[in-house]
Amino acid sequence: MEVLKLKSPADFIGRQGNGIISFGSGQPDLPPPKEAFEGIDLTRDLRYGLIQGEVKLREILAREYPGSTAENFVITNGASEALDLIFRCWRKGEKVLLPRPYYYSYPPVVEFAGLVPIYTDLVDGRIDLDDFKKKIKGCRAVLINSPSNPTGRIEAIETLKEIEKLTQKLGVYVVSDEVYKDLIYERENYHIEGDHVITVNSFSKTYCMCGVRVGYLWSADKKVVENVCEMKTHTSMNTNLVGQDMALSAMRAPKAYIRKQRKIWLQRRDFIYEGLTDLGFDLWKPEGAFYVLPKCENAREFVRTLYHEFRVITYVGEWFGAPDRIRLSYALDLKQMEEGLARIKNAMKKVKVLP
Amino acid sequence: MEVLKLKSPADFIGRQGNGIISFGSGQPDLPPPKEAFEGIDLTRDLRYGLIQGEVKLREILAREYPGSTAENFVITNGASEALDLIFRCWRKGEKVLLPRPYYYSYPPVVEFAGLVPIYTDLVDGRIDLDDFKKKIKGCRAVLINSPSNPTGRIEAIETLKEIEKLTQKLGVYVVSDEVYKDLIYERENYHIEGDHVITVNSFSKTYCMCGVRVGYLWSADKKVVENVCEMKTHTSMNTNLVGQDMALSAMRAPKAYIRKQRKIWLQRRDFIYEGLTDLGFDLWKPEGAFYVLPKCENAREFVRTLYHEFRVITYVGEWFGAPDRIRLSYALDLKQMEEGLARIKNAMKKVKVLP
Repeated sequence: MEVLKLKSPADFIGRQGNGIISFGSGQPDLPPPKEAFEGIDLTRDLRYGLIQGEVKLREILAREYPGSTAENFVITNGASEALDLIFRCWRKGEKVLLPRPYYYSYPPVVEFAGLVPIYTDLVDGRIDLDDFKKKIKGCRAVLINSPSNPTGRIEAIETLKEIEKLTQKLGVYVVSDEVYKDLIYERENYHIEGDHVITVNSFSKTYCMCGVRVGYLWSADKKVVENVCEMKTHTSMNTNLVGQDMALSAMRAPKAYIRKQRKIWLQRRDFIYEGLTDLGFDLWKPEGAFYVLPKCENAREFVRTLYHEFRVITYVGEWFGAPDRIRLSYALDLKQMEEGLARIKNAMKKVKVLP
Repeated sequence: MEVLKLKSPADFIGRQGNGIISFGSGQPDLPPPKEAFEGIDLTRDLRYGLIQGEVKLREILAREYPGSTAENFVITNGASEALDLIFRCWRKGEKVLLPRPYYYSYPPVVEFAGLVPIYTDLVDGRIDLDDFKKKIKGCRAVLINSPSNPTGRIEAIETLKEIEKLTQKLGVYVVSDEVYKDLIYERENYHIEGDHVITVNSFSKTYCMCGVRVGYLWSADKKVVENVCEMKTHTSMNTNLVGQDMALSAMRAPKAYIRKQRKIWLQRRDFIYEGLTDLGFDLWKPEGAFYVLPKCENAREFVRTLYHEFRVITYVGEWFGAPDRIRLSYALDLKQMEEGLARIKNAMKKVKVLP
């Protein structure tokens, strides 16, 4: 059997199934709400749509953003494309501040755009405002992600307000990736505000439709919206129309759907947090999203052993800027998690992972 | 009424309808084949798909490319994204040769990637091999588009073979945008060959589903496929799954569907070519696609007059690198074209367009 190279999460593609338990993939295993499929007419007009996105979808989104209109939104091929387009509109060589650990696509997307990522290390999984204040100067933007993939942490509302003030004063853009906004266990989401804010969001996680690839950005800055649309005109044109219809339909799902999902995630969160704590791991209790990032010595060896000898997929923390940790997604049911934790327990007899 | 700025085709967005006759938009007005909708199951697995695209779709495409397998393809958000990803994978500062007139997104997409477009002017709407040979040296790639938007011309098979040989010898990539491959009036499409060839294609024009945004690239060079997938992992992830299912279904349409379409386009081609020739315009007879690019003095003034006073949309040739011409798409029915030509005739009394 070929030994895992562990270059990127792509190493695990096509390795699911056959009794393998995967704590790898960052997506819900639950189905979309039934509303997502209702009333979809495939025989609709399938000619080019507006680059900015379908008006009806943007109008409904505007209701969730106080003081906004459809003009503040651009619908994109998932949050990924939104981030990519935002960064590509800025002048090459400019700096972007990234809290570390980070979602693994952030540094490449910043670099592909010709921008320079600089890092502020999280302290106990949260932004260190002292370091943040030093490093934000001279940056074009900061990219924040609360709840965070991979830490599962959320930032305190006070921190977010401090970032609002500071960036407004300095004229630095805040790109706020809020794709897990509906999966916060502790409080409601806090919309960071201001005319220098660009929010990135998605239907993928809330409505369990990652493969449909519909996301969006919101900005109060008309120039940002215009620049993104101008670029998207040449790079991908409109976002797929059937997907936009499904996103619009999914939004008709009652709030109870989201509450019910959150309850399932909470139960899983508690299960994995307790399970890993019982095994002796040092980890943060997730406050949102569906990831844990326990400390782990010999992380690469452990991830390889888990896969090759115990048929369990986990990700090395180094992909997320945290080489002394491993990342587990808990997007799987309790029965699988129980089995997975039992295998992890056995693997710990072969590799030294605790101090 | 606000006077048209004529900065880009986007100036005409939202200006259709209300008796306006549009020779603007470059997309079929005909419906997709009924097969595109048959057997589509929206309740399918909607989790992330493979970045490279659905295996079944790539397998069926492979049958159209002799000696290929599913591994030679990447499914993308339309041909636009395929081009964007290809160029972004090359080192910044490298040169890309573009025949001029060109499709209006080519120069920006090359420049967004940090590459440098250089131009070879078409002679009588076709590649001038002498100039081509001089300019291709030192280029990373050449982007060819036969049938061409905006010229409606196809390259001779001998020219394509000459380009094959020359680029192979020099180690220059040929990016062949063949989105109009099924709309050639004169002959079958000729697949340019070689291990340095990257073909870009789409379901948009052949199957009249531009808004679904499914295209693809083909390459014999595994490194190209790998690099594109690696970049797409971060910039947009998989192409929308429902769109890919529709593309796969559309391919079940009988060849008679494509023949029938071509017959309609041929009739329209003859109608507009004769109509504009009768009005005194100097233009190439289209051999493929659905555009004409007649010579036109005072092009900006004429396009403005046509729109503001005669409610006819045409595009200025300067968007396509041909400032002394205007572009008309003939993706509209004969009745509308007849009315459009009558209005053009009247507008010619107000603006001097012929020498």
